Amino acid sequence: MRMYDIIEDKKRGRTLSKEAIDFVIKGYTDGSIPDYQMSALLMAIYCKGMNSEETAQLTLAMARSGQMMDLSSIEGIKVDKHSTGGVGDKTTIVLGPLVAAAGVKVAKMSGRGLGHTGGTIDKLESIPDFHVELSMEAFVENVNTHGMAVIAQSGEFAPADKKLYALRDVTATVDNVSLIASSIMSKKIAAGAQAIVLDVKCGSGAFMKTAEAATELAETMVAIGNNVGRKTVGIVSDMSQPLGFAVGNALEVIEAFETLKGKGPQDLTELTIHLASNMLYLAKIADTVQTARERVKEVIANGEAILKLKEWIASQGGDPSVVEDYSLLPHSAQTQEVTLEKKGYVSAIDTEKIGKVALLLGAGRETKESTIDLAVGLIIHKKIGDYVAPDDPIATLYHSSASRLQDAVQMLQEAYSLSETEVEKPTLIYKMIY
Amino acid sequence: MRMYDIIEDKKRGRTLSKEAIDFVIKGYTDGSIPDYQMSALLMAIYCKGMNSEETAQLTLAMARSGQMMDLSSIEGIKVDKHSTGGVGDKTTIVLGPLVAAAGVKVAKMSGRGLGHTGGTIDKLESIPDFHVELSMEAFVENVNTHGMAVIAQSGEFAPADKKLYALRDVTATVDNVSLIASSIMSKKIAAGAQAIVLDVKCGSGAFMKTAEAATELAETMVAIGNNVGRKTVGIVSDMSQPLGFAVGNALEVIEAFETLKGKGPQDLTELTIHLASNMLYLAKIADTVQTARERVKEVIANGEAILKLKEWIASQGGDPSVVEDYSLLPHSAQTQEVTLEKKGYVSAIDTEKIGKVALLLGAGRETKESTIDLAVGLIIHKKIGDYVAPDDPIATLYHSSASRLQDAVQMLQEAYSLSETEVEKPTLIYKMIY
Repeated sequence: MRMYDIIEDKKRGRTLSKEAIDFVIKGYTDGSIPDYQMSALLMAIYCKGMNSEETAQLTLAMARSGQMMDLSSIEGIKVDKHSTGGVGDKTTIVLGPLVAAAGVKVAKMSGRGLGHTGGTIDKLESIPDFHVELSMEAFVENVNTHGMAVIAQSGEFAPADKKLYALRDVTATVDNVSLIASSIMSKKIAAGAQAIVLDVKCGSGAFMKTAEAATELAETMVAIGNNVGRKTVGIVSDMSQPLGFAVGNALEVIEAFETLKGKGPQDLTELTIHLASNMLYLAKIADTVQTARERVKEVIANGEAILKLKEWIASQGGDPSVVEDYSLLPHSAQTQEVTLEKKGYVSAIDTEKIGKVALLLGAGRETKESTIDLAVGLIIHKKIGDYVAPDDPIATLYHSSASRLQDAVQMLQEAYSLSETEVEKPTLIYKMIY
Repeated sequence: MRMYDIIEDKKRGRTLSKEAIDFVIKGYTDGSIPDYQMSALLMAIYCKGMNSEETAQLTLAMARSGQMMDLSSIEGIKVDKHSTGGVGDKTTIVLGPLVAAAGVKVAKMSGRGLGHTGGTIDKLESIPDFHVELSMEAFVENVNTHGMAVIAQSGEFAPADKKLYALRDVTATVDNVSLIASSIMSKKIAAGAQAIVLDVKCGSGAFMKTAEAATELAETMVAIGNNVGRKTVGIVSDMSQPLGFAVGNALEVIEAFETLKGKGPQDLTELTIHLASNMLYLAKIADTVQTARERVKEVIANGEAILKLKEWIASQGGDPSVVEDYSLLPHSAQTQEVTLEKKGYVSAIDTEKIGKVALLLGAGRETKESTIDLAVGLIIHKKIGDYVAPDDPIATLYHSSASRLQDAVQMLQEAYSLSETEVEKPTLIYKMIY
């Protein structure tokens, strides 16, 4: 088999065999296929596409390019959740205790944040003494004993994907739905998921700006999952504004806790219940999504979710009293309310800019080496459709120094668009893909 | 300007500006643009195409990536001829003296052969003491004094093209007509041509197997030439069988000399007269191609062409008496006639195989380092449409050792297809593109 012939086949629009795809991924990972041949193939894939069988084979080949997590010592169907990322997305912290309280085993490896989107691991580190690094043995034992564990991803799943992504990033071949979908799914599969709930976000704060593009990505990922024997559900949800109100690590942890107490923002509550219901359904704990939904609402209402939250925190070395006493979390000495000095209905929020406001305040990483301030961030007070009077604060900034505050205020103001007439609130869940 | 954005533009099917194309060629030549970005761009060009303006700009940028020949000290319009290569193509040796005798200045740099096609320089080296390497001063002086000079290309025209071709060769991006056309034309332009006659060959012995593909290439090259101010004519000619009868260096030289004497094979004679007429027309020595044709036939008939041939050979150090006494050329001690032992009309000749027969006998180079035997080769006796009886020799092999003779005989036999019914002879000149 020769890489040349594989490029030739794809450039002519032919379907690549499983053997050809395995050859490419193995050769690119071990260095026997050079970058310049791989980038030619990537561009041919960009131009000619891959069918769902090819996309599934690429996903499996990349998943198998490195370690494959073995979660067989954890009983039950392991259901993973993946979000394509957004601003104020603290769903994992809500979902974990929620589905664990309802009986789903949660064995989750999460990442840190980079750029304008936050990472679950950073958020969890706001909790005093919470350990995000556990040995594999402790991780598996925690899941078996307490029903859940969330740790920082150690090592690298799907190293072929990492190498490929770096090449795509410099050859203008990132934005192909088959390549995006296989990249995401390869890591989930390597991480041991047997079933997957995908939260594909669309709008100004998401990678996919339109519901159509997000739907195509969700459909492609669901097809991969089903093609490789991982039951997968895709949810296309709104990211045209931050999810909930809080953006920033400790601030988001508080909002997640409030949601588990049944007092969270409407959109965050609805989305997490929706995701949780589907996870219960895929784990075969409920026969239908509707009965799963009842069960999820029940564990919030009867306090089981909060009990599970405390148990989880304690199991990873944290102080569970933080759930009742938020003053134990990092907090900012200084706050500043921001107004727009004009009036109208919020018609749009440039959500990526909101993420950058948090970044400016120190809540996120500009480069992998940046250190972050867990206390800072912002609470927005106005979302799309809300009326804003000239004196109404649109958000409160939590900051630790004034150095970049003015830039943050200006960026926040720029992120809001007002309209003189009433504006409809966006739909939270655009589409479900089974 | 960033290479990333240029790849992005082309992958979306946008037209690249002159500035973008210059940036790419300069950056790739100086190494600031890496192979993996260039190959992604090449594949995007393959998939999305380039319009004639882009193709012309790419040609100019590549031509200017290295030395540009300055032929301004040679009086008159410098007309170059380029053949896309074939088997038994000795037209340059006929054409040079033919058009020089009629008044066109011939300042030609030629290459050596590789693989199944021969090179003019190798053929000329069959002539005892003929120097194929002259200083630039001597080259220009010879053209001014004797009307012609043919030397081996020294150094490298269009180094960007060489580097790009090497990359295309391993990334399955060779067979794009814009890239093929700009590659050829960039070298012609760098070599100083003011007007160009293109002989684009099609058929079993050519790079382009069909008349349609050859026509598209010829049209693309003519468009480039006219776009960059080089008056260009394209001729699509037959290479479904060897041109003339002789294949092999000294054997082809003899056939070329015979043609200048008016006693050459019908197809070689007709093609060279046709090419020569167009060169005279482009050099503005004749007002019409028809009057040019009369003039060309005249210099053959009145012996001026042979006189010019002798003058040329002498001017480059060779012995002009070789023109009358072929025994002064290298010759093979051993010959072998080959029969097919069956009968019928020749319906097809795998001309690339005929080239490989010559290669097996030692007439060509398998690698750049191979040494060649100038005496060996073959004279074919049967061409398409000819009747072959079982005892009729289809060709005579001229060889120097028996080591690979049996392979050569077998390959030659395999190259011929016979038909029970009469077969039409192929059209020599398919198309003219002005």
